Amino acid sequence: MKAFVTGGAGFIGSHVVDRLIEGGNEVIVYDNMSTGIEDFISHHYENPRFKLTQGDVLDLKKLSQEMKGADIVFHFAAHADVRSGFNDHKIDLEQNLIGTINVLEAMKEGGVKKIAFASTSSVYGDAAIIPTPENYPFSPTSLYGSSKAAAETYIATFCEYYNMTAYIFRFVSWVGERYTHGLVFDFLNKLKKDPSTLHVLGDGTQKKSYLYVKDGVDAIFTIIEKSKEKMNIYNLGNDEIINVTDSAKVIIDEAKYKNVKLVYEGGDKGWIGDNKYVLLDTKKLQSLGWKASKDTREGLRITTRYLLDNPKIVKKRNEKSIFKI
Amino acid sequence: MKAFVTGGAGFIGSHVVDRLIEGGNEVIVYDNMSTGIEDFISHHYENPRFKLTQGDVLDLKKLSQEMKGADIVFHFAAHADVRSGFNDHKIDLEQNLIGTINVLEAMKEGGVKKIAFASTSSVYGDAAIIPTPENYPFSPTSLYGSSKAAAETYIATFCEYYNMTAYIFRFVSWVGERYTHGLVFDFLNKLKKDPSTLHVLGDGTQKKSYLYVKDGVDAIFTIIEKSKEKMNIYNLGNDEIINVTDSAKVIIDEAKYKNVKLVYEGGDKGWIGDNKYVLLDTKKLQSLGWKASKDTREGLRITTRYLLDNPKIVKKRNEKSIFKI
Repeated sequence: MKAFVTGGAGFIGSHVVDRLIEGGNEVIVYDNMSTGIEDFISHHYENPRFKLTQGDVLDLKKLSQEMKGADIVFHFAAHADVRSGFNDHKIDLEQNLIGTINVLEAMKEGGVKKIAFASTSSVYGDAAIIPTPENYPFSPTSLYGSSKAAAETYIATFCEYYNMTAYIFRFVSWVGERYTHGLVFDFLNKLKKDPSTLHVLGDGTQKKSYLYVKDGVDAIFTIIEKSKEKMNIYNLGNDEIINVTDSAKVIIDEAKYKNVKLVYEGGDKGWIGDNKYVLLDTKKLQSLGWKASKDTREGLRITTRYLLDNPKIVKKRNEKSIFKI
Repeated sequence: MKAFVTGGAGFIGSHVVDRLIEGGNEVIVYDNMSTGIEDFISHHYENPRFKLTQGDVLDLKKLSQEMKGADIVFHFAAHADVRSGFNDHKIDLEQNLIGTINVLEAMKEGGVKKIAFASTSSVYGDAAIIPTPENYPFSPTSLYGSSKAAAETYIATFCEYYNMTAYIFRFVSWVGERYTHGLVFDFLNKLKKDPSTLHVLGDGTQKKSYLYVKDGVDAIFTIIEKSKEKMNIYNLGNDEIINVTDSAKVIIDEAKYKNVKLVYEGGDKGWIGDNKYVLLDTKKLQSLGWKASKDTREGLRITTRYLLDNPKIVKKRNEKSIFKI
C-alpha cells in the first residue's frame, strides 16, 4: 500500500509513519515542517519505501502532484494549538478546514479513495453527555473545534460525491514519545524557568483524559483494518480522567521537583473555548477489540520523561514559532 | 429593534423583512441582488424605517460598516441551489461558510449579540432516523449541506467566544409567495416549454415536506420570542410528506395542464447529493405553540398559482444567472 501522510513529521503523524513503514508500506510524508521535526522521521531517510516532500496543504497544485498514485491519505497536518484560535481567527480555518478541503480536492483529482483524518474531541464542545458518544451533535467552543467539525462535514460530502471511504478519529489529547505541545510541555517549560511556582490556567478542576500515542496508533490501524462503513467515525480516548491539579502533581513528581507551589489563574476554565470535562465514550472502538495499554497517569509520566530526556527536541520545538500564513 | 437582514431581497428574507416592518422595527436589508428581486422589497422604499444597502457578505469591510448599531442580524443571504455545488465546489464554501464567518466577524466588531440563521435540513444528509430530530449528528451529502453545517459550528464558537445568542433554523424546502427556485419553479418552466412531457429528476419516489413561507416566518419569530438558550436550534418543517410524483401531479393539476406524461431520469436520487427522504421532527418547535396553517399540498398549490400569476417575477428570476464569484 502507498500511503500519503500529511503532517507526517509531527508528533502523531510520525508514529503513523513508523507503523506504516513497519507494515511494509510505501510512505510519502507531506509536511511543511512548520512544527514538524526532522528527528521524528530521519531514521527512515535511507529507506527506499520512504519519501519526504516539504509542502503545504494550502498549496493545492503541489499537494495534487505529490499525492498521485497513493492508495490512502492520512491527513494529520493541522494547526493543533486550540488556544490560539481565539486571537487569530484565520489560522484554524486555513490550516485545518481549507487544508482538508484541499486534501479532498487532490484526492478527487488523483482518484484516491480513502482518507484517515485526525479529528478531535473538541467537536463536541462542553458536551452534556459524559462519556460522550460519537452520535453526540457538534457544538464546538473553539475555532479549532469548529474547523475540525467543519472538515468532517466536507469529508462526508466528498465521500458521497466521489465514493470515498473515510476513517475519522475524534481524539482526546495524546501523550507519549515525541509529544511537543500541550499541558506537559507547557508545565515543564514553566518549571524550568521557575521551579518554585507553577502557574496553572484555570482552577485546576478541569478534567481530561490523555491517550498514549502508541495506543492511539494501534486504534487507528485497528479501525482501518476492521471498520467497513463508508464513514467510519470513532472516538479515541482513555477511560481514565484526571484533573489538571493531579496532572500537575504527576508531572512534578516524575520530574522530581520539590515543594512546587501551584498558582491558579484565569477563572474556572483554562482559557476561552476550553472544555472543562472531556471524557469520550470509546465503546465503539473497544468493540473492535482495542484496549489501551497505558492509563492516563502512565502516559503523563512517559511524556515527562521523554521531554526531560530530549532537551534538544524541546529546544527545536520551542524555536519553531506557531506557523502563520 | 434595529434588524440587519442579509439576503433581505430574497424569497424568505423579504418575508422576514415584511414581518419586521409590520412589528415596528427598523430594518436594514443587505443584499448583493444576485438573486434578490427588488419587487419583493420595493413596497418599503418610502418607509423611513427601511433601508436597502446593496452589498455582498464577502465584502467584510462594507458588511461591518453597515451592520453597526444593529440589535440583531438575520443572516439569510446564501447560495441556495443545492445541486450546483457538485459542479462548482467553491460557491457554497464562499457564499455560505465564508459569508457566515464574515457576518460573525462583523457582529464581533460591532458588538452585535444576536444572530438568526437560515440553516437547512441538508445538514442531516440521508438521516437514519425519520422524522429527524435536532440532536441527529451532521452527515451532509452535499456541499450546500456541508457549508451550512460548518457555518453552524462557527456560530457555536462565536457564541462561546463573544457571548452571542443564536437562533438556528434547520429548514426543509419552503414554498409560497415569492418562491423563485426549486421544484415548482423548475417544473413550471419545463411545462411551459413542453406541456406534453415533464422530465423528473430521480425515480419520483423521493419524499419531501414543504413549509409554507408564512408558517415558516411565524416559526422564526416564535422561536426568537420564546426560546431562551444561548444556541436555539430548531427544525422547521411540515409533518406531511409528499413524493416527487405526487408533487408533480399537484402542480400539473393546479396549473391546469392535461395529459402530461412524466418521464423519470437520473436514477433513484434526484441528483448526486440529494436526500431521498426528508422529514424533520418538529416537536421542539411545536412545544413553543407553533402550528403550520397550510399543509404541503396547499403550499404547492399556492406556489404554483403565485408563479403563474407573476410571469414578470419568473422572467426576472430566470434572467438572473446563478451568482458566481
